[in-house]
Amino acid sequence: MPELRFNLVTKDWVIMAPERAKRPEDFIKKNIERGELPAFKESCPFCPGNEQRTPLETYRWDRGDSWQVRSIPNKFSALTREGELTRQMDGLKRTMSGVGLHDVIIENPRHNGFPAVIADWEIKDTFQVYRELYRRFYLDPRVKMVILFKNNGAAAGTSLEHPHSQIVGTPVTPPQIRYRIEEAQKYYDDTGECLYCRILREELTGKNRIVLENDHVVAFVPYAALSPFHIWIFPKRHMASFDLLTRSEQEALALALQEILQRLYYGLDDPDYNFVLRSVPDPQGTNEHFHFYFAVVPRLTKAAGFELGSGMYINTQLPEKDAEFLRGVQLPDKA
Amino acid sequence: MPELRFNLVTKDWVIMAPERAKRPEDFIKKNIERGELPAFKESCPFCPGNEQRTPLETYRWDRGDSWQVRSIPNKFSALTREGELTRQMDGLKRTMSGVGLHDVIIENPRHNGFPAVIADWEIKDTFQVYRELYRRFYLDPRVKMVILFKNNGAAAGTSLEHPHSQIVGTPVTPPQIRYRIEEAQKYYDDTGECLYCRILREELTGKNRIVLENDHVVAFVPYAALSPFHIWIFPKRHMASFDLLTRSEQEALALALQEILQRLYYGLDDPDYNFVLRSVPDPQGTNEHFHFYFAVVPRLTKAAGFELGSGMYINTQLPEKDAEFLRGVQLPDKA
Repeated sequence: MPELRFNLVTKDWVIMAPERAKRPEDFIKKNIERGELPAFKESCPFCPGNEQRTPLETYRWDRGDSWQVRSIPNKFSALTREGELTRQMDGLKRTMSGVGLHDVIIENPRHNGFPAVIADWEIKDTFQVYRELYRRFYLDPRVKMVILFKNNGAAAGTSLEHPHSQIVGTPVTPPQIRYRIEEAQKYYDDTGECLYCRILREELTGKNRIVLENDHVVAFVPYAALSPFHIWIFPKRHMASFDLLTRSEQEALALALQEILQRLYYGLDDPDYNFVLRSVPDPQGTNEHFHFYFAVVPRLTKAAGFELGSGMYINTQLPEKDAEFLRGVQLPDKA
Repeated sequence: MPELRFNLVTKDWVIMAPERAKRPEDFIKKNIERGELPAFKESCPFCPGNEQRTPLETYRWDRGDSWQVRSIPNKFSALTREGELTRQMDGLKRTMSGVGLHDVIIENPRHNGFPAVIADWEIKDTFQVYRELYRRFYLDPRVKMVILFKNNGAAAGTSLEHPHSQIVGTPVTPPQIRYRIEEAQKYYDDTGECLYCRILREELTGKNRIVLENDHVVAFVPYAALSPFHIWIFPKRHMASFDLLTRSEQEALALALQEILQRLYYGLDDPDYNFVLRSVPDPQGTNEHFHFYFAVVPRLTKAAGFELGSGMYINTQLPEKDAEFLRGVQLPDKA
């Protein structure tokens, strides 16, 4: 019989319908993996030598004589960089000027340097730039919330091949973020404990949804995962903001995210995915009730009318089986 | 400059980024319209003569000697029809048995009888069956909420061609629904007026987002539409539930939904879309603060990491322009 599971973080009910389950292999849709693309592509504005085809860079991380990671303003920015933050009310209409920051982070000089196939030091460099831009974006007084995310592949919302992430500073704290933080606060008020710390403890005891664990980090498929192979990656130490990581925690987190992406890449043949950082809207936020994390969401299924109408989700894959499958993926030896 | 608009119903901020706008014609993606499919397809289990290939019907609406609308249990039901509603708590885990109802409504005997191209009496018949099933589903004591929706086309989540809708009775009231109702209640507490009635009044005064209006019904593109050509269709008279419509209101609503689907079909060359009914979780719900409606959502764009991470939306089309375009679509003369 299908079962409904409640997601305590998002307050969503998820219908687990494993009768409709596919085998993990059935999610595999293509024959070429992104790592097999050429390392350089003449027509790609993000490849080295084509720097003049992008807007002026906002940040640059060098290795030797050349850049390793660059950030540039998004050419198709959703928000405008210049201008004042203004608000208007007119009857029921609430409007704000669309000011804010929106950068593209070119993760790597190589056209095929995808997170799943690069060296350890490269993913650590990427994270160093994530951290630096995250901190800098909050210095702009118009920015209330920084959203860091990656769209990988057409089903995840990008047609650009060259490995890149995005970072947006919005002039409001989105209600979705505030709602999660408020719910975490309620749990803390009730129990005196961080909800997420408690979840980590239960997951580490049960172990059947864990995908990887090391001294600093744990990654697992949530008990009420909204979609197949959905993964949460948490620092073990309690902290509300991404900007509070120690150097060794940051490196462990970078490597953990890379390993998760590798397990998806080699296990599900390079699926399209998004990942997002979920952190408090304050880089130095030191509250006791929120715990930042990364969510990795492979785009293997499509939300339709039922999800739109109900806000509930149907997941055909059992989280325990997904975790078991991902743990079993054979990774190539590191160079 | 882009502008942020606040959606008072969903409490979402939407970034209106018309700098990235396309022309309506640029959303058109295909060359064949669904109305040009054959009227009968031997291999289709929903076509007349193939009734034995579907599960036993749960309801049937006849015209003359043959059926006009049928409903059958969904073969790939997310919920199981038999069994008791049970709940379990174990540490942080909250589980419920996945019981409920999930039917497919075959709208029409014709394989190509899509809402945009059928006769007035046919769409009225479809609505009569929607109403009847909506009422019946609530008679099951395990059902807390009934979700009525349509997935039209692959981008909207269905690969079945034959015109069909779906109706699901879930054993919980989804938090998303409860949240909207609570927000409407707060507005009522504050002002003594239904938020939606107030929105209708403003829209009918301003007129620039209205797509159609008649004695009983008004349809418009919401001020803070989450995506291009998003449309809300409301009964003008205040009522919280779909089951409170008079006969003439019901017919006017059916025809209004059809006209909206026609404007999309002829204007954007038969786009994929979802529509959903948003009504209170009680067929006789007579509260003063919620106002039921249909939402029509063409699937022309894709939510990606930004939406996932922020819960905010980026809409490249201005609602005022979308409404103007839809009003201007030339419809064929009715037979």
